[in-house]
Amino acid sequence: MSIETAEARVDPRVRRTRRDVRRVAGELLRAEGLDAVTHSRVAAEAGYSRATMYTHWPRPIDLLSEAFRHFGSTPHHERTGDLRADLIGELTVLRSVLVDEGLGRVLSTVAERAVSNPELAGLRDLMVAEGTRILDAALIDHMAPDRARTATTLAIGSIFYLATMTDDPISDQTIAGLVDQITA
Amino acid sequence: MSIETAEARVDPRVRRTRRDVRRVAGELLRAEGLDAVTHSRVAAEAGYSRATMYTHWPRPIDLLSEAFRHFGSTPHHERTGDLRADLIGELTVLRSVLVDEGLGRVLSTVAERAVSNPELAGLRDLMVAEGTRILDAALIDHMAPDRARTATTLAIGSIFYLATMTDDPISDQTIAGLVDQITA
Repeated sequence: MSIETAEARVDPRVRRTRRDVRRVAGELLRAEGLDAVTHSRVAAEAGYSRATMYTHWPRPIDLLSEAFRHFGSTPHHERTGDLRADLIGELTVLRSVLVDEGLGRVLSTVAERAVSNPELAGLRDLMVAEGTRILDAALIDHMAPDRARTATTLAIGSIFYLATMTDDPISDQTIAGLVDQITA
Repeated sequence: MSIETAEARVDPRVRRTRRDVRRVAGELLRAEGLDAVTHSRVAAEAGYSRATMYTHWPRPIDLLSEAFRHFGSTPHHERTGDLRADLIGELTVLRSVLVDEGLGRVLSTVAERAVSNPELAGLRDLMVAEGTRILDAALIDHMAPDRARTATTLAIGSIFYLATMTDDPISDQTIAGLVDQITA
């Protein structure tokens, strides 16, 4: 059962609460980083009681996971079956989420803290699995599984590196060049 | 004039001070992160006065740059002219520096803070330029400059991503697979 199906069955008021909190927590995460996503801060800015917050998100990591889902709501590229177009489409979405929406900076913090924080390591692994799954799906019809996995690592890795370790804008031409070399 | 030549001309006592401080600052950086690399902490652990520290490294960023040079002292792969062997050799060194020596975690912190700290952005750019230069040099005899630059981004990006965003060990087989796909 997908997350969306599960959500469709819950009380509409709970759905609204979750949607509001996700948006507020996600925007705090983007604007101010991990440490801003606290129960009291999100409660105040979203207009809910702290009791409500703790009922739905008992632990700090639950609230942080909700905030990260805000980024996951960016629509994925609609797959066409054309490998080059699909990879370029997905990496363009990835650029937008990492650079324009600021997820790259947040992930750098998560990467640093995950070394000594197993909950954050789990969250990081979920984010990686989500990003990987989409690219793997685009590649798997076109090449052997091992090669598809390697291509996914090259594609995600290079965009993540450019977004977090350089100030260079990631141009459409850069993305096309990476894709052409990965699928050569 | 290379850094080594410049260093050979300075007073041997100054050379010794620099070597001691670099080692201590580098080990603090690796073990405890950026915030541990302070003048007073390094002075105490290296056995020099704070006055000496401030004479040679006036600003905190100077001391931090010195600490990062400790990682740069890992010997690079000796180039053979065989593209595959040279890329595998360089990426094996990169894995060792990022994972075994812990530079990956430190770079995640630098990436996060560089967004709002121009001095750290400068330091990050120097590290990227150093890593890029070596791989570009290995690739440039074998392919057009544009393609060499793209291959460098794919190579460094994928190892950086695996080292900082996953707990998966980066096996020799993984490195060989990345190199084969990059140079296909």
